[in-house]
Amino acid sequence: MSTSITIPSACDFHVHLRQGEMMRMVTPKVVEGGVSLAYVMPNLQPPITNTDQALAYKKELEALAPEVTFYMTLYLSPELTPEEVRKAKKAGIAGVKSYPRGVTTNSDSGIENYEIYYPVFKAMEEEGLVLNLHGEVPSDHNADICVMNAEIKFLPELEKLHNAFPKLKIVLEHATTSAAVELVKRLGDTVACSVTVHHLQLIVDDWAGQVHHFCKPVAKYPHDRDALRQVVAQGHPRFFLGTDSAPHPSHTKETAHACAGVFTTPLVLPYLAKIFEDIGCLDKLEGFACQFGKKFYGLSQKPGFKDNKVTLVKEADEIVPKQYQISSTTASLGAVVPFFAGKEIGWKIKTNF
Amino acid sequence: MSTSITIPSACDFHVHLRQGEMMRMVTPKVVEGGVSLAYVMPNLQPPITNTDQALAYKKELEALAPEVTFYMTLYLSPELTPEEVRKAKKAGIAGVKSYPRGVTTNSDSGIENYEIYYPVFKAMEEEGLVLNLHGEVPSDHNADICVMNAEIKFLPELEKLHNAFPKLKIVLEHATTSAAVELVKRLGDTVACSVTVHHLQLIVDDWAGQVHHFCKPVAKYPHDRDALRQVVAQGHPRFFLGTDSAPHPSHTKETAHACAGVFTTPLVLPYLAKIFEDIGCLDKLEGFACQFGKKFYGLSQKPGFKDNKVTLVKEADEIVPKQYQISSTTASLGAVVPFFAGKEIGWKIKTNF
Repeated sequence: MSTSITIPSACDFHVHLRQGEMMRMVTPKVVEGGVSLAYVMPNLQPPITNTDQALAYKKELEALAPEVTFYMTLYLSPELTPEEVRKAKKAGIAGVKSYPRGVTTNSDSGIENYEIYYPVFKAMEEEGLVLNLHGEVPSDHNADICVMNAEIKFLPELEKLHNAFPKLKIVLEHATTSAAVELVKRLGDTVACSVTVHHLQLIVDDWAGQVHHFCKPVAKYPHDRDALRQVVAQGHPRFFLGTDSAPHPSHTKETAHACAGVFTTPLVLPYLAKIFEDIGCLDKLEGFACQFGKKFYGLSQKPGFKDNKVTLVKEADEIVPKQYQISSTTASLGAVVPFFAGKEIGWKIKTNF
Repeated sequence: MSTSITIPSACDFHVHLRQGEMMRMVTPKVVEGGVSLAYVMPNLQPPITNTDQALAYKKELEALAPEVTFYMTLYLSPELTPEEVRKAKKAGIAGVKSYPRGVTTNSDSGIENYEIYYPVFKAMEEEGLVLNLHGEVPSDHNADICVMNAEIKFLPELEKLHNAFPKLKIVLEHATTSAAVELVKRLGDTVACSVTVHHLQLIVDDWAGQVHHFCKPVAKYPHDRDALRQVVAQGHPRFFLGTDSAPHPSHTKETAHACAGVFTTPLVLPYLAKIFEDIGCLDKLEGFACQFGKKFYGLSQKPGFKDNKVTLVKEADEIVPKQYQISSTTASLGAVVPFFAGKEIGWKIKTNF
């Protein structure tokens, strides 16, 4: 059994870095987790819908974590035009994120019908921008659609989009079902999945009454988790890390209506080392966390950070912090409870990139 | 549309009345909900496993709610013998409750294998005691069993038990799936379901991040809720009220690991009037809440309370209390948040039994 592994610094192809005090707490923790490339979600308030907003946001993030290479995304909305897509490409923006309306945090501006966006997707295909899909349809009780099958019911939309734009790179974000894994494998080289840390670990039982494990999409059945574990254990190059780390103050989790999201940013590589070791595929960690995403996107860290390494060591008494204070000066802002809070994680970063 | 209905006082064939201060708060609220017959669960600490314990507990409850007719149950455990079953019957105990190990509150003493209890079931069949089943198998990730399919995976056990003891009256408690509804309909006159208030209203989406809706068994898919609604709307005589009302202090709900249970006792009939009106079967409320359970069990209210009526009226501004303090003297014990807390319920009891 390995007691130490050295791999390149990781790439997180789906992360929420928030705004204000939360952003100032979370963004420096990207580095702490061993991550040097962060693909940043645009669901702020208001959402990042154009190039200028994205660049301004990027500047804020770079000031907080100059070691990290940030790639920005735009929030798919009627405001987005083919012209804006071309402008975004020139400005280095890497993708466009689509949220179905109302399915997760700050998704009220989300889309309901993809066809109105076909001119935008055409421009994205031409320019090489990636389409990032939150792959859930909204719950509809009359159609028997709920959080447990919202991803499966979305999959025909993914296939339809791929057929309409076969050269458009599409990422089904935070896949949670064996059906999604099977479809994405089948759709071929332009379609991929991001996979979170927590969906490699959790099933529905784990968020039943456990709000810190509640996220969207929700974790599903054991066989779904098994499918995610199997595809990463196979080292499949179109299944790569996107944590969907989504911090919320604990008082908005431990309450009658909890916000959806699991916070993994500060310990991304230690979590993954533990989980991959448990699955028995520690040798596949590097591909999943460091290589496959970059290759699919055709992106890389900025000069000076391309070949930097991280060394992780096994350490029996390593415990995940119970919480992270959001502000060192304003206690009333509360704290964020991380994934595995207070539990032994067994791995730590010995030398970071 | 009715604006007033008068029905007999209700029978709750599955209720948790707890111990200590919680018991003293909850038990008088049975009457407030329009319920005059309460079939009381034995999962105390320690569990009620014999006749003497049950009678002592019954005495405590009667002192708190003299208007209510209490029927007691024993917790199925190796301590229970055929002799104890016969003693229990003579003492007026009505049933035996079986919990699979570890699936809900205070079920650590639950059973794992029914066959060792066949001599007990034989005695119950002969004596006319009812077997109350918490119909879930424990989660087993290797067998793809989790909270979402734990009831469906239990159903073969129910059928096996029924085939072994076809004259034993069995109630599948708090049914949550269309599969359970279909099976129980098929198994015939000695097998019934209790149905809770909240499972007529909730689906999985409602407990995703909403701890006050988290209970065991968890609410399932829309089509499952539809099956429960349809069978009560049909007025099926083997589907009757058992609320599984299960109070927990709110600080044990709004926390990282929430206790399982929904509290409906204080407003049982107003909740049901609202839900049955929404479904469009207010005319079936009386059978479901007042008649079918008594008929299946062969039980009735004590003398002086048999024919007492409850009148409910529609009232637009009727709001469910946000919480119920557990103790009027010890604030630190906290409060219980009821189902629909702070929401308009639309019905109130105008004259109680």
